[in-house]
Amino acid sequence: MRTGQTHLFIPGPTNVPESVRQAMNVPMQDMRAPDFGDLTLGLFKDLKSVLRTKTGKVMLFPGSGTGAWEAAITNTLNPGDKVLMSRFGQFSSLWVEMAQRLGLDVEVVDVPWGAGVPVKEYARRLGADAKDEIKAVFVTHNETATGVTSDVAAVRRAMDDCFHDALLFVDGVSSVASIDFRMDDWGVDLAVTGSQKGLMLPAGLGILGVSEKALEAARGAKMRRAYFEFDDMLKLNADGYFPYTPPTQLFHGLRKSLDRIQHEGLDNVIARHHRLGEAVRRGIAAWGMDLVAEHYTLYSDTVSAVRVPQGVDARDVLRIAYEEYNASFGSGLARLAGKVFRIGHLGDLNEGMCLTSLSLAEMALARAGARIELGSGVGAAQDWLLLQHMDAPDLCVAAE
Amino acid sequence: MRTGQTHLFIPGPTNVPESVRQAMNVPMQDMRAPDFGDLTLGLFKDLKSVLRTKTGKVMLFPGSGTGAWEAAITNTLNPGDKVLMSRFGQFSSLWVEMAQRLGLDVEVVDVPWGAGVPVKEYARRLGADAKDEIKAVFVTHNETATGVTSDVAAVRRAMDDCFHDALLFVDGVSSVASIDFRMDDWGVDLAVTGSQKGLMLPAGLGILGVSEKALEAARGAKMRRAYFEFDDMLKLNADGYFPYTPPTQLFHGLRKSLDRIQHEGLDNVIARHHRLGEAVRRGIAAWGMDLVAEHYTLYSDTVSAVRVPQGVDARDVLRIAYEEYNASFGSGLARLAGKVFRIGHLGDLNEGMCLTSLSLAEMALARAGARIELGSGVGAAQDWLLLQHMDAPDLCVAAE
Amino acid sequence: MRTGQTHLFIPGPTNVPESVRQAMNVPMQDMRAPDFGDLTLGLFKDLKSVLRTKTGKVMLFPGSGTGAWEAAITNTLNPGDKVLMSRFGQFSSLWVEMAQRLGLDVEVVDVPWGAGVPVKEYARRLGADAKDEIKAVFVTHNETATGVTSDVAAVRRAMDDCFHDALLFVDGVSSVASIDFRMDDWGVDLAVTGSQKGLMLPAGLGILGVSEKALEAARGAKMRRAYFEFDDMLKLNADGYFPYTPPTQLFHGLRKSLDRIQHEGLDNVIARHHRLGEAVRRGIAAWGMDLVAEHYTLYSDTVSAVRVPQGVDARDVLRIAYEEYNASFGSGLARLAGKVFRIGHLGDLNEGMCLTSLSLAEMALARAGARIELGSGVGAAQDWLLLQHMDAPDLCVAAE
Amino acid sequence: MRTGQTHLFIPGPTNVPESVRQAMNVPMQDMRAPDFGDLTLGLFKDLKSVLRTKTGKVMLFPGSGTGAWEAAITNTLNPGDKVLMSRFGQFSSLWVEMAQRLGLDVEVVDVPWGAGVPVKEYARRLGADAKDEIKAVFVTHNETATGVTSDVAAVRRAMDDCFHDALLFVDGVSSVASIDFRMDDWGVDLAVTGSQKGLMLPAGLGILGVSEKALEAARGAKMRRAYFEFDDMLKLNADGYFPYTPPTQLFHGLRKSLDRIQHEGLDNVIARHHRLGEAVRRGIAAWGMDLVAEHYTLYSDTVSAVRVPQGVDARDVLRIAYEEYNASFGSGLARLAGKVFRIGHLGDLNEGMCLTSLSLAEMALARAGARIELGSGVGAAQDWLLLQHMDAPDLCVAAE
Repeated sequence: MRTGQTHLFIPGPTNVPESVRQAMNVPMQDMRAPDFGDLTLGLFKDLKSVLRTKTGKVMLFPGSGTGAWEAAITNTLNPGDKVLMSRFGQFSSLWVEMAQRLGLDVEVVDVPWGAGVPVKEYARRLGADAKDEIKAVFVTHNETATGVTSDVAAVRRAMDDCFHDALLFVDGVSSVASIDFRMDDWGVDLAVTGSQKGLMLPAGLGILGVSEKALEAARGAKMRRAYFEFDDMLKLNADGYFPYTPPTQLFHGLRKSLDRIQHEGLDNVIARHHRLGEAVRRGIAAWGMDLVAEHYTLYSDTVSAVRVPQGVDARDVLRIAYEEYNASFGSGLARLAGKVFRIGHLGDLNEGMCLTSLSLAEMALARAGARIELGSGVGAAQDWLLLQHMDAPDLCVAAE
Repeated sequence: MRTGQTHLFIPGPTNVPESVRQAMNVPMQDMRAPDFGDLTLGLFKDLKSVLRTKTGKVMLFPGSGTGAWEAAITNTLNPGDKVLMSRFGQFSSLWVEMAQRLGLDVEVVDVPWGAGVPVKEYARRLGADAKDEIKAVFVTHNETATGVTSDVAAVRRAMDDCFHDALLFVDGVSSVASIDFRMDDWGVDLAVTGSQKGLMLPAGLGILGVSEKALEAARGAKMRRAYFEFDDMLKLNADGYFPYTPPTQLFHGLRKSLDRIQHEGLDNVIARHHRLGEAVRRGIAAWGMDLVAEHYTLYSDTVSAVRVPQGVDARDVLRIAYEEYNASFGSGLARLAGKVFRIGHLGDLNEGMCLTSLSLAEMALARAGARIELGSGVGAAQDWLLLQHMDAPDLCVAAE
Repeated sequence: MRTGQTHLFIPGPTNVPESVRQAMNVPMQDMRAPDFGDLTLGLFKDLKSVLRTKTGKVMLFPGSGTGAWEAAITNTLNPGDKVLMSRFGQFSSLWVEMAQRLGLDVEVVDVPWGAGVPVKEYARRLGADAKDEIKAVFVTHNETATGVTSDVAAVRRAMDDCFHDALLFVDGVSSVASIDFRMDDWGVDLAVTGSQKGLMLPAGLGILGVSEKALEAARGAKMRRAYFEFDDMLKLNADGYFPYTPPTQLFHGLRKSLDRIQHEGLDNVIARHHRLGEAVRRGIAAWGMDLVAEHYTLYSDTVSAVRVPQGVDARDVLRIAYEEYNASFGSGLARLAGKVFRIGHLGDLNEGMCLTSLSLAEMALARAGARIELGSGVGAAQDWLLLQHMDAPDLCVAAE
Repeated sequence: MRTGQTHLFIPGPTNVPESVRQAMNVPMQDMRAPDFGDLTLGLFKDLKSVLRTKTGKVMLFPGSGTGAWEAAITNTLNPGDKVLMSRFGQFSSLWVEMAQRLGLDVEVVDVPWGAGVPVKEYARRLGADAKDEIKAVFVTHNETATGVTSDVAAVRRAMDDCFHDALLFVDGVSSVASIDFRMDDWGVDLAVTGSQKGLMLPAGLGILGVSEKALEAARGAKMRRAYFEFDDMLKLNADGYFPYTPPTQLFHGLRKSLDRIQHEGLDNVIARHHRLGEAVRRGIAAWGMDLVAEHYTLYSDTVSAVRVPQGVDARDVLRIAYEEYNASFGSGLARLAGKVFRIGHLGDLNEGMCLTSLSLAEMALARAGARIELGSGVGAAQDWLLLQHMDAPDLCVAAE
C-alpha cells in the first residue's frame, strides 16, 4: 500500500497549490447568472498580463492545449495554406501532424531531438519566400519532450528582417507563466497554452492569446470549424459568458492561481523557475548524466530530459519510482522511450520538492542499475541553492 | 450578502452529490502511469451500461457536449453530405447551425417550439429518399430549451419502415442517465451527452456513444478533424490512456457518479426523475400556468419550461430569485426570453429540492407581479408525492 | 438510496457555509510556528465583537460547549459554593447536573418546560440573600430543547436592584451570533458558546467569554482543574499559542465565519434570524400546532419546538423525514420525546431553506398521521416573507 | 511568497493522507440520527485493534490528548492517591504537573532528559511499597520532546514481579499506531492517545483505552469530573451516541484512517516507521550530530531530537527552514530550546518525505552556521533504504 505524499515530478499536470484546490471545491453555479462576468472578465484581463499582451484577446476553450492548437489554426488559416513548421520532439511533431490533418501545406524542417527551432533555416526559407506564400510560422517555445526552450524572439527578428508578413504561432503550453514569454514584444499572433502547467490547475482549459492581426486574419478564414469558433467566443465573452457550458470550477481555481502569480510577481515566478531548474540540472550533472538538450542555451527551466546511462532502461527508473517511491517522473516519449526520463520542475514548486525529485531519482536510478553516488545530485543542487542566498552575483554567473 | 445554501434549479450544470465532490478533491496525477487504466477502463464500461449499449464504444472528450456534437459529425460524415434535422428549440437549432458550418447539406424541418421531433415528416422524407441520399438523421432527444422529450424509438421505426440506412444521431445531453435512453434498442449510432447533467459532474467532458455502424462509417469519413479524431482516442483508450491530457479529477468524480447510478439502479434513477418531474408539473399546473411543451406526451422529466402570465416578465422572476433568494432557474432562451423560465429537475435530486424549487418560484413570481396563491404549487406537488407512497397504482395512472 | 441534498434542520450542528468549508480543507500546520498568531489573535479579537464585549477575554477550548460550561465553573468557583440555577429544559437541567457533580451547592428553581428563566423568583432569592452567599447566578439564554429565549438583561437588573455581587453565568450556545447577546451591557461574567451553532462550524470548540470580574474571581478559585485551566490558556494565548495542540482547521473555518458575520453585520445576522424564525413560526401556526414555548415573548429565533397533535408520535415524524426525505429535524428530548419535534433555524440560513423545512415537515407529519393541509405552512411563511419586502413597517409590527 | 508543498516534519499534527482529507470534507449531520452508530460503533471496535486490546473499552473525547490524560486520572483515582511518575522530557513533566494539580500525591522520579522511564527505580519503589499505597504507575511511552521510547513491558514485569496491584497509565500519544503498543499484553489500564499523530487526523480527539480493571476502579473513584465522565460516555457510546455534540467530520476521517491502517496492516505500519525512522537517524549520524536519546535502545521511531553543534542556535535552524524553505521542524522544548531541533517521522510518511526532511534540514543547518557536508545525510539515508530492498537480513541487523 502506498503511504505518504505522492511526489509528482511530471511536466504537467503540475502540483495544484492548496489555495487553488480550495478555490475549486465549489458547488455548481449558473453560467448565465447576471454576475457571472464578475468572475470571468477578470480572468481574461489577468491572463493577458501573464501572456504579456496589451492588445491581444484571450480565449478559454473547454478542452486541452491540443484543442487550443486547433482553434488557432482553424480560425486564422485557409485550407491549403502553406505554413512553416519544425520538428524536434514529440509535441512539435504532433503539431505538425495536426496541421497536416487540417489540410495545411506544411513545410517541415526536421532537426535533431535536443535542438531547438532552427532559426537560421527559418530565416533562409522566409527570405526565399518572395511571394509571401508562407502564411504562418510555428514555434514550439518549450518542447516538453526534450526539455528544450527555443528563441521565439529570434524567430520574430528573422521574420522582421525579411519583412515577412506571416502569422506567428507559438506553443507556450509548458512555458507560459514559468519561462519568460512576451506575446506583444515578440509579435506572437497565436499563443497557445493550457491550464495544467504553469497555471497550476487541473487539465481542462485550452487557452489562447490572439493578436489583433490574428483576429483580422480570422475574419476571412474559411477553414471549417464550429466548437472552436472565435466569433461565438468573442461575442459572448464580451459580457463574460460562453457559447457552451464552461467548467466553472476551473475558473475559480484560475482566479486563485492568477492571484498567486500576481502576488509573487511574474518576474519572480520566472526567476524561481530558473533557480529551481538550475538546481535540478546541477544535480543531474553531478550524476554524470546528460540532458537531451544539446546546448546550455537551450536548457528548459520547466523540464529536464535526462539520458540514462548505457545498460539502464529508463522505463525501469520510472516504474521503480512509481511503484516503490510513490513518485511520478515523465517518461521518454516516442524515440526517447527507454533512454530518457524527465523531471518536471514547473508550477507550484519549491526547494524541498526539487531536492526530493533528485533524491528519489537517485534511488530509482540506483535500483535500476545505474552507478550513481547516492546523495551526490542532492548535494550539488543544495550547493547551488545556498549560493543563491549569498551576495555574489558574479559568482552565480560564473557558476553558470 | 447571500446566506444559506445556493438553490440551483437550472437544467445543468446540476447539483454535484457530496460523494462525487469528495471524489474530485484530489491532487494531480500522472495520466501516463502504468495503473491509470484501473481508473479509466471501468468508466468506459459503465458508461456503456448507462447508454444501454453492449456493442458500441464510449469516448470521453475533454470539452463540452457541443464538442461531442462536433466529434460525432466530423468523424462519420463527409463534406456536403445530406442530413435530416429538425428545429424546435434553442439546442436543436444550434445543432443545425453546427452542421451547416461544418459543410453538411442540412435538410431542416422547422416545427413550433414546444413540439418534438416531427416523426411523420421524417418518415415522409425518408420514404421519399429513394437513393438514400440522406446520410444521417438527427434527433434532439430532450430539448432543454422547451422541456420537450421526443420519441427516438419512433424515429428508428420510421427509418426501419422504409429500410433507410442513414446514421441516427441523438443528442441525449439532458436525457441520458435521467430519462429512458436505449442506444442499442433504438439503433442510435451517435449518442451525445455531457458530464454536467444526469451524470452529476461539473462541465468538462463531452461524452459520445458510437455504434459499430458509426465506427464503420468513420473509417471512410473525410471531414477535416484533429482534436476530435476517433482513431487517436480509440487507439489510446484501449489501454485506458488519452491522446492529450485529460481532466483526471473529473474521472474520479465520474467513477463515483457511476457507482451511485449503479447503486440506485438506472431504472430507479429514471423512475425518480419521473416522480419528481411530475411533482414539479403538478405544482405548475396548480398555479394555472402552462408549459411550453405542447402535449403531455412530450413533457420532459428533466426540465419544465413555464410560461409566465401576461404582464409578467420572466426575466424579473429570474432576477428576483437570484438576487433575493439565492436561487437559479433557467432563463427563457432566444425567442422565449422574457416569456418563460425553466425549472431543472434532474440529477442529484430529492423531494425537498423539488418543493423548494416551487416555493421559491412562487415567491419570485409573486414579487414579479404574478397573481398566484402562495403555497398552492407546493401543496399540489406534495399531494402527488404522498400519493406515490400509497398502494394504489390505478390511482396514480388516473391522476396522470 | 438517498439522493439529493441532505436537509439539516437540527438546532446544531448547523449547515456550514461553502466558504467556511473551503477554508477548513487545509493540510496540517505547525501550531508553534512564529506566525501562528497571525491566524489566532484576530479570532480572539473578533469573537469579542460577536459577544459584544470590550473588556472581557475570549478563550477557545478544544472540546464542546459542555467543556466550556466546566471551564467556566471550575476556574471561578470554589467547592461548596452556593449558586442559583433554574431548570426548564434538557440543557438547563444538564448544567444543573454538572454543577452538582462539580461539588457546588446548587439552589435549583424548577419551572415548567416551555417557560424561561424565572426572573422574579431569582430576584426574590437574591434579595433574600443578605450575606451574599450566592456566588453565581446561571441563565440558559436559549433553551435549545424547548425553543425558549430568556431575558438575560432582566436577570442582570434583578441582580443590580439588590446590589448582588454574584457572578453571572450565561449559556449562549444556541444564541450567540444568532440572537441578540450583549456580554458587557448585560454584565455577563461567563458567556459560554460552541462552534457548531451560530458560528456555522463543525463541533470541536468550546468558546468562553470571561469578564474582568470573572478573571479576578479566577485568581482565588480553588476547584480542581487542569485541562480547562484559564492561566495556561491566557499565558499562551497572549502570543496566539495554546497549551495543547488545537484544531487548526477549525481556526481557519472560524476565521472565515467571523469574516462572514462581519460582512453581513451582526445586527443584520440577528434580524435575519428573526425574520426567518418568524416565517417558520407562521408556518407552524398555520398547521394549527403549538410551540412548547409558553408565550410569544419567549419564542426563540433559532429553534422552534413543535407539539405534534394527539395521536401522532413525533418520533414517526422524525423517522419518516430522515428515511424518506433525507431531512433531519431535532427530536423531542427527555420528557418531550414523542410529543415534540424541533425545527432548527439558525446559522447559515435563507428563505428557501426555511420553506423546505416546512414543506418536508408537512410531508412527514401527513405520513405520520397528522391532519394537515399540505402547503398551508409554506404559504403562511411565504406571506410573512413577502410582507417583509413591503414598505410597511406598521403592518409588520401589527402582524407580529 | 511561499510556493510549493508545505513540508511538515513536526511530531504532530502529522500529515493527513489525501483519502482522509477527502473523507472529512463533509456537510454536517445529525449526531442523534438512528443510523449514527453505523459510523461510530466500528470506530470503537477498530481502535481496540490499534491499541491491541480485546477486553478494554475505547472512548473518544472531543478535546486533545491532554484531555484524555485528565479523563484517565479523574475517573479512576481519588484525591490524595499516591502515584508513581517520572520526568524525562517536556511531556512527562506536564503529566506530572497535571497529576499534582488534580490533587494526587505524586512520587516523582527525575531522570535526565534523554533517558527513559527508570524501570529499576520503579521496581525498587514498588517493591518497597508493602502496603500498596501506590495506586497508579505512569509511563510516557514515547517522550515526544526527546525522541525517547521507553519499555512499557519492563514496567509491567516490574509490577508483576512484586505482585503490585497499581493501575498502569501509559501515554501513547506519539507511539500508538506507529510504534509497537500492546495494551492487553502489557497490562496497560489507561492508554492515552490523540487523533493528530499516528492516526493521521487533525487534532480534536483525545482517545482513551480503558481496561476492565480501570473500569472497576472507576466505579468507586471520587475525584470531581463532569465533561470527562466515563459513565456518560459509556452509556451513550453503547448505541454509538455521545453525551455532547462530537466532531463528526473527524469521525469520518478516523474511519478512513483506520481503514488505511488495516489495509497496510498494523505490523507493517510499525515496520515502516522503523525503516523510515532509522533512515533519518542514519542521516543525522552522517552529519556527525547526536540525538538527545542517550542510547540506541531508546531511539524513537516517530521523532528524532537532534542536538545542533556548538555555536549553532537551533532556533535559527527552525526559523530558516520555516521562512526560507516552507518546512516545519519541531522545536527544542523547555530546557532544550536553542540546543535541539526535532524531526517528526510518523504518520502518513514515505521515503521521499524522509529524504526531504534531511535535505531541507541540511540547508537550514548550513545557513544557520553548521559545518555540514551537503547531501551527506541524504546519502546515508538512501544507503539504508536501498539496503532494505536487498535479500540480506543479516546485513540489516549488522548495520544496526
